[in-house]
Amino acid sequence: MEIIVEILTTILSQFQKPTLAFLIGGMLLAALGSRLEVPEPVYKLVVLLLLMKVGLGAGIAVRGANLMELAVPALGATIAGIVIVLIGRAILLRQQGVSPMDGMATAGLFGAVSASTLAAAMGMLDAEGVAYEGFIGALYPFMDVAALLTAITLARMSAARSIVSTPDEAGTATMTMGGNGSGFNGTFVKDILVDTLKSPAISALLLGLALGLFARPETVYASFYEPLFHGLLSLLMLVMGMEAWARLADLRKVAHVYILYGILAPFVHGAIGFAIGMAANHFTGFSAGGVVLLAVMASSSSDVSGPPTLRAALPEANSSSYIGTSTALGTPIAILSIPLWMALAEAMIAG
Amino acid sequence: MEIIVEILTTILSQFQKPTLAFLIGGMLLAALGSRLEVPEPVYKLVVLLLLMKVGLGAGIAVRGANLMELAVPALGATIAGIVIVLIGRAILLRQQGVSPMDGMATAGLFGAVSASTLAAAMGMLDAEGVAYEGFIGALYPFMDVAALLTAITLARMSAARSIVSTPDEAGTATMTMGGNGSGFNGTFVKDILVDTLKSPAISALLLGLALGLFARPETVYASFYEPLFHGLLSLLMLVMGMEAWARLADLRKVAHVYILYGILAPFVHGAIGFAIGMAANHFTGFSAGGVVLLAVMASSSSDVSGPPTLRAALPEANSSSYIGTSTALGTPIAILSIPLWMALAEAMIAG
Amino acid sequence: MEIIVEILTTILSQFQKPTLAFLIGGMLLAALGSRLEVPEPVYKLVVLLLLMKVGLGAGIAVRGANLMELAVPALGATIAGIVIVLIGRAILLRQQGVSPMDGMATAGLFGAVSASTLAAAMGMLDAEGVAYEGFIGALYPFMDVAALLTAITLARMSAARSIVSTPDEAGTATMTMGGNGSGFNGTFVKDILVDTLKSPAISALLLGLALGLFARPETVYASFYEPLFHGLLSLLMLVMGMEAWARLADLRKVAHVYILYGILAPFVHGAIGFAIGMAANHFTGFSAGGVVLLAVMASSSSDVSGPPTLRAALPEANSSSYIGTSTALGTPIAILSIPLWMALAEAMIAG
Repeated sequence: MEIIVEILTTILSQFQKPTLAFLIGGMLLAALGSRLEVPEPVYKLVVLLLLMKVGLGAGIAVRGANLMELAVPALGATIAGIVIVLIGRAILLRQQGVSPMDGMATAGLFGAVSASTLAAAMGMLDAEGVAYEGFIGALYPFMDVAALLTAITLARMSAARSIVSTPDEAGTATMTMGGNGSGFNGTFVKDILVDTLKSPAISALLLGLALGLFARPETVYASFYEPLFHGLLSLLMLVMGMEAWARLADLRKVAHVYILYGILAPFVHGAIGFAIGMAANHFTGFSAGGVVLLAVMASSSSDVSGPPTLRAALPEANSSSYIGTSTALGTPIAILSIPLWMALAEAMIAG
Repeated sequence: MEIIVEILTTILSQFQKPTLAFLIGGMLLAALGSRLEVPEPVYKLVVLLLLMKVGLGAGIAVRGANLMELAVPALGATIAGIVIVLIGRAILLRQQGVSPMDGMATAGLFGAVSASTLAAAMGMLDAEGVAYEGFIGALYPFMDVAALLTAITLARMSAARSIVSTPDEAGTATMTMGGNGSGFNGTFVKDILVDTLKSPAISALLLGLALGLFARPETVYASFYEPLFHGLLSLLMLVMGMEAWARLADLRKVAHVYILYGILAPFVHGAIGFAIGMAANHFTGFSAGGVVLLAVMASSSSDVSGPPTLRAALPEANSSSYIGTSTALGTPIAILSIPLWMALAEAMIAG
Repeated sequence: MEIIVEILTTILSQFQKPTLAFLIGGMLLAALGSRLEVPEPVYKLVVLLLLMKVGLGAGIAVRGANLMELAVPALGATIAGIVIVLIGRAILLRQQGVSPMDGMATAGLFGAVSASTLAAAMGMLDAEGVAYEGFIGALYPFMDVAALLTAITLARMSAARSIVSTPDEAGTATMTMGGNGSGFNGTFVKDILVDTLKSPAISALLLGLALGLFARPETVYASFYEPLFHGLLSLLMLVMGMEAWARLADLRKVAHVYILYGILAPFVHGAIGFAIGMAANHFTGFSAGGVVLLAVMASSSSDVSGPPTLRAALPEANSSSYIGTSTALGTPIAILSIPLWMALAEAMIAG
């Protein structure tokens, strides 16, 4: 009982902290019809700087890390990405009003990772003085790529199977990726992989990672990327809040199951990530902050890199269903539930 | 005599300080035909960050303030906004070549507040080490909304009266705001109020105010918004200077009285604000810096929030007359005359 | 032998420093086909802030400098700009497949100065703790304007001469600049000069210079422009790297001599600047850092101010040949060879 009170107290106190307060502020502005807007190039700059910061920090940390230490959480992140997509398929594809393509795209997006949400969680842990492994940013691509690859592969395989029975659609369905015209085959997985890695978010993260690993960017990291982190994060949260509210209207057009999925999935997926993190904590001493960040990554759905990748790979899917569900529900709920994982980790690990 | 020399010395020394120097630099660049330009999204980002900074600072200060202390200057700011518009109406509407709509729009814009000018004055006081009440930013909406509401209401009332005599124009004149089609009525004032509060500038300021008041944004304020303030202000002054020069050409097309009004109004309005501030100083111990800022707010004319609000509420007014007068004359003169109020306050309060 | 090893070691160590690492990172991203992009307004903001920083710093330094100290390097910079263009003409105009206009435009661009490259060199010297004269930024316009004026004047003179023999083209060839319609004459040089000074890059630099010289911007320089310098430089290098790679494709369309020129010119021109700097070092005690920066300015080719000036003044020249050569080869090679001049200066002056 005491633990629950403690958890609720921790959660409530976070709502006054800048990160969540700016998110809620952005939602309120949009809800009240403000004409305030953050220009697109500014949004892109903010995301670029935050991702580079996360990547550089991870790269610098990986350079000094024991690679085995990294291997366990990386495997865990990969497993989380795949499991989340498989659960999404099991749930969404048996619902009425959900086409297989739309369902797989939604499952893929919720399996992939939101850089903003991860940055928000890092900011909140920093502000609380909770330590986490410096290399955590390097886990992002493992979960993200695993989820997108799994979702796109399963969607294309199911489309290929339906082609056999309905040969008329074959032309459009098989020509969409890489233009190889030969349906599902080996180079297809590589094409998705390469396409995902080329997306702006993953590129920025991997660039930061590579620079942190192979160059010596410590000075510019300490004088520029790190000091600006919290301020840029506050701007990003503002934009995410406004964006989430603006997207709510999209949900009127989609099946009810998407709304239910968008609300519950962040909690279920976060719990999966949390459980994997707890296992790593048990066996390899993975930090409490690391467990929180793994839970948050699993809980989040991709907002920067996922949508264009899915749109390119699964053009038949209706983007307003999966992007609406993710942006209007998945992302804000994932961000707002960060304090839950913080409180849980504090109760279960420190205790 | 000595006081006048002292005042002139204070004024001259300010022209070498970054704030005014960047404004003059921007004017010179435009006058010399430079092709340098600051992209629109950058301008919007700078204004957003400055307004959030002013709002956050005010919100944090209001949280700890005695509300009665705030009430007197807030009332003063409201009165200043209304009085300035009434004076503007008395002067402008009896001039030849000034339509009632154009005159009221101009009076409203000069009664409203320029966030850039306020930020410039804060920057200059900070640099001189002159203290002012932290909640000053919270006075901005009182004066701004009072002036815009008064101007738009008077303009619509006079249009409604002329509709009675010239029924043909009724349709266009009464349908412009809120589309209620019933001429001037009660919901009309609320519509203007809501529309003004939704404008980007007031929204950003109120958002900062609310976050400062209800959340705990002290860390991100101190690590991001405050340190960047002076640098962003220098960029904004550069843009204002270029913009002022570019707008000068507009003035060739308007009646001479606008030019005279644009030059003199900042001084007359500033004196009104200064007098109200001095009264508050006398009765409630309002600070010298506060008196300066109230004078500057009264002296300034709106550049971010006013124009779109007026354009929406008074579509019959010729925007090149009121925006030209304000941007090319009112705003730069208000900024350049900030040292005058600083010198006056120093001579009258410290002395 | 030892000196060569030392030079190579110095060079290699620079490739891990942020400046070059971000440039190479940008190239790799583009080479690997990443969809990451830095929006145009962000790029413009970064360049504006860097140029203002260089200008402000130079202005503040010139204010306290002995003007004779500045005169010798300024003369050296002017001579370097002219000599580089004359060499370019001697080499390029006798090659097959190079039109006189294209050749002169390329020579002009390689004689002009790249603000990004200069900023990169300053950043690298700062990071190594190598001192240089504060006024160095003020030399930029001398070399830049001298090179562009020489190239455009020579190109227009040769076009005027060919007009005598082929009167049919007279109309188009002589009407391009200033529209005076009287062929080559006195006001023509002034027109180019004014046009060059109005270009965004030179304007921003001269504005910073004037503000540093006549105002007192020390506080905002120290609190904003200087602390952001290295971080913004890292972003700029990223963009330059991506841009360089993207422009490589242009080179397939141009004559081979451009490729050879683009690769070798930075080294030859840098050596000319280095020699002039060494002379100034010998006679007036010009610093080792100053020698490096003069070499880098000479080595670099203009990327911000030069192209639009040349496009306006020499519209007959094929911009894909000169901009392609400069952006894809000249600029990255000039940046990558900065460590060479640093190592040489260290070996020859400190030794």
